[in-house]
Amino acid sequence: MERSGWPCTQLRIGDTPRMSNKGQQGKQGNKGKQGKQGKGHELAITPRAEDYPKWYQDVVRFGELAEPAKVVKGCMVIRPHGYAIWEKIQRDLDGRFKDTGHKNAYFPLLVPQSFIMKEAEHIEGFAPELAVVTHAGGVELEEPYVIRPTSETIVGHFFAKWISSHRDLPLKINQWANVIRWELRTRMFLRTTEFLWQEGHTAHSTHEEALTEVLDMLEVYADFSESVLAVPVIRGIKTASERFAGALETYCIEAQMQDGKALQAGTSHDLGQKFGIAFDVKFQNVDGDLEHVWQTSWGVSTRLIGGLVMTHGDDDGLVLPPRVAPIHAVIIPIHRTEEQKVVVLEAARELQRELGEIDLGEPRARYRDFLEVVVDDRDMRPGAKFYDWERRGVPMRIELGPRDLESGKVCLKMRVPTTEAEAEAKNGKLFLDRGEFLAGTRQRLLDYQDALLERARARREAATVSIDTWEEFEATFAGDESKFAWCHWDGSAETEASIKEKTKVTIRCVPLAGQGPAPEAGVCVYSGKPSVQRVLMAKSY
Amino acid sequence: MERSGWPCTQLRIGDTPRMSNKGQQGKQGNKGKQGKQGKGHELAITPRAEDYPKWYQDVVRFGELAEPAKVVKGCMVIRPHGYAIWEKIQRDLDGRFKDTGHKNAYFPLLVPQSFIMKEAEHIEGFAPELAVVTHAGGVELEEPYVIRPTSETIVGHFFAKWISSHRDLPLKINQWANVIRWELRTRMFLRTTEFLWQEGHTAHSTHEEALTEVLDMLEVYADFSESVLAVPVIRGIKTASERFAGALETYCIEAQMQDGKALQAGTSHDLGQKFGIAFDVKFQNVDGDLEHVWQTSWGVSTRLIGGLVMTHGDDDGLVLPPRVAPIHAVIIPIHRTEEQKVVVLEAARELQRELGEIDLGEPRARYRDFLEVVVDDRDMRPGAKFYDWERRGVPMRIELGPRDLESGKVCLKMRVPTTEAEAEAKNGKLFLDRGEFLAGTRQRLLDYQDALLERARARREAATVSIDTWEEFEATFAGDESKFAWCHWDGSAETEASIKEKTKVTIRCVPLAGQGPAPEAGVCVYSGKPSVQRVLMAKSY
Repeated sequence: MERSGWPCTQLRIGDTPRMSNKGQQGKQGNKGKQGKQGKGHELAITPRAEDYPKWYQDVVRFGELAEPAKVVKGCMVIRPHGYAIWEKIQRDLDGRFKDTGHKNAYFPLLVPQSFIMKEAEHIEGFAPELAVVTHAGGVELEEPYVIRPTSETIVGHFFAKWISSHRDLPLKINQWANVIRWELRTRMFLRTTEFLWQEGHTAHSTHEEALTEVLDMLEVYADFSESVLAVPVIRGIKTASERFAGALETYCIEAQMQDGKALQAGTSHDLGQKFGIAFDVKFQNVDGDLEHVWQTSWGVSTRLIGGLVMTHGDDDGLVLPPRVAPIHAVIIPIHRTEEQKVVVLEAARELQRELGEIDLGEPRARYRDFLEVVVDDRDMRPGAKFYDWERRGVPMRIELGPRDLESGKVCLKMRVPTTEAEAEAKNGKLFLDRGEFLAGTRQRLLDYQDALLERARARREAATVSIDTWEEFEATFAGDESKFAWCHWDGSAETEASIKEKTKVTIRCVPLAGQGPAPEAGVCVYSGKPSVQRVLMAKSY
Repeated sequence: MERSGWPCTQLRIGDTPRMSNKGQQGKQGNKGKQGKQGKGHELAITPRAEDYPKWYQDVVRFGELAEPAKVVKGCMVIRPHGYAIWEKIQRDLDGRFKDTGHKNAYFPLLVPQSFIMKEAEHIEGFAPELAVVTHAGGVELEEPYVIRPTSETIVGHFFAKWISSHRDLPLKINQWANVIRWELRTRMFLRTTEFLWQEGHTAHSTHEEALTEVLDMLEVYADFSESVLAVPVIRGIKTASERFAGALETYCIEAQMQDGKALQAGTSHDLGQKFGIAFDVKFQNVDGDLEHVWQTSWGVSTRLIGGLVMTHGDDDGLVLPPRVAPIHAVIIPIHRTEEQKVVVLEAARELQRELGEIDLGEPRARYRDFLEVVVDDRDMRPGAKFYDWERRGVPMRIELGPRDLESGKVCLKMRVPTTEAEAEAKNGKLFLDRGEFLAGTRQRLLDYQDALLERARARREAATVSIDTWEEFEATFAGDESKFAWCHWDGSAETEASIKEKTKVTIRCVPLAGQGPAPEAGVCVYSGKPSVQRVLMAKSY
């Protein structure tokens, strides 16, 4: 099959010279201003192998997901391309919460300082990270407020007002909100002093029912992570040292990044009756006796975007699964003369319109997920455009030139080759009959989505080991290295602390059934004491 | 037509005895706990004629839209029924912003105190309302942060980084966020220290283009208010004294509440180059010269929910237009025996399922607006249920009993009668063939939506006057009375201040073309000095 257009066949991907200030500035208003911000040498993405943390920063910045606020300690500005991913995350998760019987509400940003003090473990965990409002309306406040680091306390206060009988239970609330935790070391999306999240808060009449909720929501997170973000996760239970401050147990999903480190992607907490007791949330049970409620809380945050970047991205920039991609396809018009330009642009807009009618979502979903398609008619060389859209992780690139129009074909390049045909095609470019291409686009994107998950899963499997000796353990985690390591552990906090101190490795979780190797007796990789099952160990973000 | 069901014909609406604590508590988890909160006499809604402000509070509270936080000064908790309205507002407006080329982003909650100081008028306007963070992470901060009262300053800071050329313009950003303004007198939704809103921020290369944006967004607000909230508005320009702190001009939409007072429902500001100068946001124009950008900002907030309540509500509680109603229909099963109960409940759920497939939205909308239908199978008397759902403003109530099933009919009562048939029917109940009812439901709800707008418009017309003498003016605005009054004004701030001081009446706006009486020369209603056009005067929230 021959390339019909011009002149993109002469350009190799990623081969374009560094873009000038002019080239970077497009018609889309929200673009970065490289000219003022940096020098030319900053425009290339640092390869992963050279400096992984720098690669991450570059991808986030050049992909225009976010930038450090600088003037506000540890905060970031989430730029439109990043915020659009968050909106897609919200939209999908919110539907899942509603489908499982939760309702959204909104509680105050400010929490009386005394509230935080009511649960002993909670205050111990959060006190060092609080931002405190001491003055308002021009006067000093009698009691300072803290900006919510999480809302268990203020929610507990209102639950006590709303709950009096078993008939008021279960009470299942979710809140989409911003929170502040004053962190010392921050990194865009992964750990910022302010972040956006959702926090579920539920109250139940029995511990059993609360535990079912905790596990149900963990599964909502896990399924969302795998089927929407294409990020495979391991479901497990945190050890005491990693537990949420004030929880009986913290359940989690753990993802592996491309450097082998773990990212805690979501947590679901069994709060027992601790907050019920602290805020006196009581209900009359069926026998007429008063009991404290059993509570849960669970949350995921903008951190998921960091996990998305570090799971799928490559040295050319972002790679986005179609279900969270703000832009699904870009059409690059290829033309030499002004006459060609007019004809090609018209055809490009017609193709854009037709693609834009494809709904990636499900027929009964609450929202329509029409493909978002950009025609890049900027006055710059096609190669520079390729480079630009690759960095933004757009799944499909379509080149359209006069010869394509004549032959009724389109030239398609997926951001990442995932089929044999794509892998074998010259420069990854497929030449497809226009009609067949349109008819197959939805399925192609869904297959691409699945393929990204499989790719991530394969990567994880390749970077997962079972380790039985301390020598092997130290070798595996030498320097900044990490893998997912299934190891026997004697169950003691002392051993856990020693391992962390010596190697920076932590116990990510004790796996739930089916999430790790089948339980088997063994001896602790560190202490040699008896162990009943392997746990997941890794360095982490 | 004869009533086929049983026994709701024997019950008069609103005739049910006050509900017991038990009756109030349903299977829905998020219900109020009247037993703990209040005495029986608090369960009745105060009639509007008796005490309008108290009526408003009652409707918000018993409709379970929100409640005062109390422990956090001037804040409220937005409960699920209220938050669901906000979600519908967001969903619709957000689509309108995107359709007009705006992208969402997120800027930090905290703003360096020095930023607020950079624009002289801005600091003057907002300084008295700021909440200040002085401590964080356990230490006192070198420079305090303020919690954003609005984001012009922090946005200006980043615009300066992102804009360098005319090719970067226009830059059109929107943010959904919480803000804090430390107000002395607060009222749920209408004025709270923390509120939720959206704030649009745009930058342009010419004043003309910025002004077009300001007016376009005002029209987006006006059309949204009328077609979605069914709240008619008058579009106009604020006088200098009511202008946004730091704007050249503030454009607004003004709605009339049922007590004749005005509610400013949305504002759109022409910021000129003031923030561009304060934050040094410059661009190179086509001629290569550096210029400051021309900016706009515009916002609406959770205040809209207060306006919705006060526009449509009645002495039985909330009245909600279908496009923002969290629940569109409630089905009340009517049965005497256990056998009947089984059969009726099954039929009710089948009807619920069929109604739930009706999409109130448009075929190409970003979201599907499937009808939300509740089957109220609580163990309480039908009359108590009617009372409960009326308070929540549910547009349609369907009673379903054994005789309805036999005859293939449904008994329908709209929350507010808007057709002749409904007005004439006994107790407003229509008996409709089930199939025809289903086929006509979407149109019925859309007609109801239109009728609520017409009803509000008619109310406003009836409470709008032209006043030419000061005696008539004083009589119209005696005591706590208000109407919309078109009056001549001499254009001076002194006259405006005198009128306000004497009567609490303010100039709501100078109407845009077609929004008020045609311009005509006259004499000021207060000073007798010459005037070129009438302006809108009213007391306001």
